[in-house]
Amino acid sequence: MLNGKTVLIAGATGGIGAPICRVLHSRGANVVLFARRREKLDALHRELGDKGVLVVSGDACDPVAVRKALFETEKKFGRLDAVVIVVGTWGRLSTENSIEETAESIDHLYKTILLPTVVMGQGALKDMLNQPAGSVIFHISSHASIRPYLKGNLSYGAVKAAAEAFFERVRREIGDSHVKIVDIRPATVNTVELPGALSKSSKAEEMRKKGATQEKINEWIAEMCKLAVQPEEIAAWIAENVGNKKVPSSMLFDSELVLD
Amino acid sequence: MLNGKTVLIAGATGGIGAPICRVLHSRGANVVLFARRREKLDALHRELGDKGVLVVSGDACDPVAVRKALFETEKKFGRLDAVVIVVGTWGRLSTENSIEETAESIDHLYKTILLPTVVMGQGALKDMLNQPAGSVIFHISSHASIRPYLKGNLSYGAVKAAAEAFFERVRREIGDSHVKIVDIRPATVNTVELPGALSKSSKAEEMRKKGATQEKINEWIAEMCKLAVQPEEIAAWIAENVGNKKVPSSMLFDSELVLD
Repeated sequence: MLNGKTVLIAGATGGIGAPICRVLHSRGANVVLFARRREKLDALHRELGDKGVLVVSGDACDPVAVRKALFETEKKFGRLDAVVIVVGTWGRLSTENSIEETAESIDHLYKTILLPTVVMGQGALKDMLNQPAGSVIFHISSHASIRPYLKGNLSYGAVKAAAEAFFERVRREIGDSHVKIVDIRPATVNTVELPGALSKSSKAEEMRKKGATQEKINEWIAEMCKLAVQPEEIAAWIAENVGNKKVPSSMLFDSELVLD
Repeated sequence: MLNGKTVLIAGATGGIGAPICRVLHSRGANVVLFARRREKLDALHRELGDKGVLVVSGDACDPVAVRKALFETEKKFGRLDAVVIVVGTWGRLSTENSIEETAESIDHLYKTILLPTVVMGQGALKDMLNQPAGSVIFHISSHASIRPYLKGNLSYGAVKAAAEAFFERVRREIGDSHVKIVDIRPATVNTVELPGALSKSSKAEEMRKKGATQEKINEWIAEMCKLAVQPEEIAAWIAENVGNKKVPSSMLFDSELVLD
């Protein structure tokens, strides 16, 4: 049980972030929900209730917003045991894209993945290095950071690799400190967005061409979603490692589902 | 000899870029000098003369400028055998920096290293894939892309790792094509900026404190510069591999000089 432990989740309302908040809160942790969109934050807040919940809206790219979230956390709960960085989106880019599309793609993923990860990470680190207790930064990366083979992951893989490279250098710099940083690398995750992605896949297209009913296609989608990494698995692993001073520096969650 | 071969150098006027232009041109290559600053381009142009030289000013972050450089190259020389991407700067960041400084640092290095590398790389790739002859993209990366141990290389190492990760994914996507992409990873290079950096090093500071004359310090700096990677070594290696269809995908230039 995580009673009395406090975890700040940056990107709390997203497809992986929200399930993480639910699981940590259900296990007794104080959760700090940090995200940009107020309506989504409010919805999650209503769902979890007031007990052990703090809501802070802000952009993790903004050092002032990050400082505010950390300050409010300290004020309300008096401690910070872990931060989960689960900001960002997913996007594919192919070598077939135009130069303009390439520039747009890398720029978008830089601003939504790499920049907020680095700013939130540095903010959490500075706070945690000043605390006596052991703390963990859980960085939700991707298997794409180390696996170049999924077609179209050009800029996504690049920014995930950059975020991990940043933290690897931070680890060397802080040495054997009480602050640990973990890169969590999930393969395809069963988020609310996954059925839509599967419904646009070439396999679904093929089924449609062969005359499959929507019901049949939905059955196939549901089956595929079960093969993906479940966000709750990731959340459970985080919950088990909030106080672990010997947490490994990377953790890969594999799945049988490979998107084409 | 590189007679008749054409090489476009993006970042032509920089500390590593300019020596590469000189060596390639002296070996008979047509060189396309692509960089932002007109005065620096004009100075290099005057030095090399008109024969086998094309000057295009523009920002490698801008797809339109990249397209223009490639178009002018084709128009003047009718071919493109290699592109050297040697854009960017160097900057250190420590875990001791403020969150604001961290955000600024990653943003600056993203815009001066990662973005122009990706945009120039994709532009060159699209051009080269349409040409029948073998071509090489030489990406001047850094040993910092794979070595996390030099203190303060947090955001520099991250963006270099990202650029390499991007190209690694491109390689997988284009498969066994006639376009090769090489990550060149030099350790500290003897550029025009190096003496200044050494003169601010803790070793120079120590010498000053112990009463060493400026002449003695300059002697030490000159000695250190000899231990660094010489840009001409990199240029010579590039010259030898312009037409090489079996060029390795990465090349590390080590040096005995390690900056503190």
